[in-house]
Amino acid sequence: MEITKMHGLGNDFIVIDNREGAAGDAASLARKLCHRRLGVGADGLLLLEDAEQADARMRIINADGSEAEMCGNGIRCFARYFHDRFAPDREEYAFATLAGIMRPRLEMRDGRVTGVRVDMGAPSFDRGAIPMAGEGSPLNVRLEAAGQTVTAHCVLMGVPHMVVPCDSVDDIDFAHLGPALEAHPQFPRKINVNFVELTGPNTVRVRTWERGAGPTMACGTGACATAVVLNELGLTGPAVDIQLEAGCMHIERAAQTVYMTGPAEYVFVGELLSK
Amino acid sequence: MEITKMHGLGNDFIVIDNREGAAGDAASLARKLCHRRLGVGADGLLLLEDAEQADARMRIINADGSEAEMCGNGIRCFARYFHDRFAPDREEYAFATLAGIMRPRLEMRDGRVTGVRVDMGAPSFDRGAIPMAGEGSPLNVRLEAAGQTVTAHCVLMGVPHMVVPCDSVDDIDFAHLGPALEAHPQFPRKINVNFVELTGPNTVRVRTWERGAGPTMACGTGACATAVVLNELGLTGPAVDIQLEAGCMHIERAAQTVYMTGPAEYVFVGELLSK
Repeated sequence: MEITKMHGLGNDFIVIDNREGAAGDAASLARKLCHRRLGVGADGLLLLEDAEQADARMRIINADGSEAEMCGNGIRCFARYFHDRFAPDREEYAFATLAGIMRPRLEMRDGRVTGVRVDMGAPSFDRGAIPMAGEGSPLNVRLEAAGQTVTAHCVLMGVPHMVVPCDSVDDIDFAHLGPALEAHPQFPRKINVNFVELTGPNTVRVRTWERGAGPTMACGTGACATAVVLNELGLTGPAVDIQLEAGCMHIERAAQTVYMTGPAEYVFVGELLSK
Repeated sequence: MEITKMHGLGNDFIVIDNREGAAGDAASLARKLCHRRLGVGADGLLLLEDAEQADARMRIINADGSEAEMCGNGIRCFARYFHDRFAPDREEYAFATLAGIMRPRLEMRDGRVTGVRVDMGAPSFDRGAIPMAGEGSPLNVRLEAAGQTVTAHCVLMGVPHMVVPCDSVDDIDFAHLGPALEAHPQFPRKINVNFVELTGPNTVRVRTWERGAGPTMACGTGACATAVVLNELGLTGPAVDIQLEAGCMHIERAAQTVYMTGPAEYVFVGELLSK
């Protein structure tokens, strides 16, 4: 079986053409292939399948075998893979996902894909939707966690996110504050935590503590949540560059939605020798 | 550039035919390729090169770019790779390493490699050689660490090892005892720590805390050290099966040396798309 390893800012995936059912039991294959030492190693599998009212279907199987609805870093990789293999003459595609039809658009230079833009949907500042206990705006909320008091701003960006501005993302007590805020009792379904540092008029460094997963190199919805919150607070314009460990994402807040643009890189293409 | 990912009980390697110098700057390539998310992901690179008085040279470049002298799990993978690609008609090879000539021997069944046996050299119970402070036998030593008292048995098996028998390797305070024993002041160059549980007359479960690396899925010299110590204490015969998270190693203590036999598995063969 042929496999392709790709990553979006360090969020890594094994892409498999599953139109003929090569993946078999996808949950079991994901657990096996995603193992970092006994397998190929990745955060998840991206399965390309046929779809009736779209160019293709993208299924995301996490390393633990569960199926994800959507993934911003994953769909950028998937779009580049689809372009290079199946439709190099087009720059926009419709992919069926569990979160509905997604329409990523490629950015090209000299015939090469340099980035992929994805419509990430509308943010919500509704407390019940996030969900978050209490009443009123979910912005400028004082929270106690790990013996500290922080000012947090919360938003639903597909998944619940908290944005915590700080002077330097290097100096915060990430390993303690991250899990303490994630599990803060005001958030009945827990929450993703983004520590953010303004480094220029519209540039921001972000470190994300991912709900259920801990430190992550790149969180697409976290980058969007950060841009939306900072814009809502009047600290940035509607378009910002989010600086992450492995590179940069560009986020644009529009009237009813948020656009995320970021890279999608190949690592290798290979043939599985043990399954 | 073609790459092959293999592993020996979860200790994983990228094998590269470097006879034509494909790897270029090996330290820089190792740092890049071994990265688990931005690269292929592995504990190290195994470079196959020409050697004057051996079948080939095996160089081991760790994920941090440093070069290792020898690696028991690595040489098993290397021997299987060499057999399958270059010399399927033979079962024993001589490979030049920084630790001298190594002569792994394949175990075959129906024309397939089922395991590889490696001469791991002689153990030493000399305190100065381990190195370990104090006088007398390095066996049955009482040590205080992480608020507990343990009985430890130390041996040099190429690298310094401590063996700590316990009732159950699942119940020990691995995360605290491991680093505390590794850095115990009696060991000026620190020490690898093996917690061992006798599960049958000649079968042992082992969890190894590796010096400088922490938890490891499989440590070849640790398995040898465990077998040698238990045999020296009269708790097992000269041949034992070491049960690890991902499978089994067979260790035989001979008059002047120790033989380790274990598996070497393929994961995939691939073509690097970014370097």
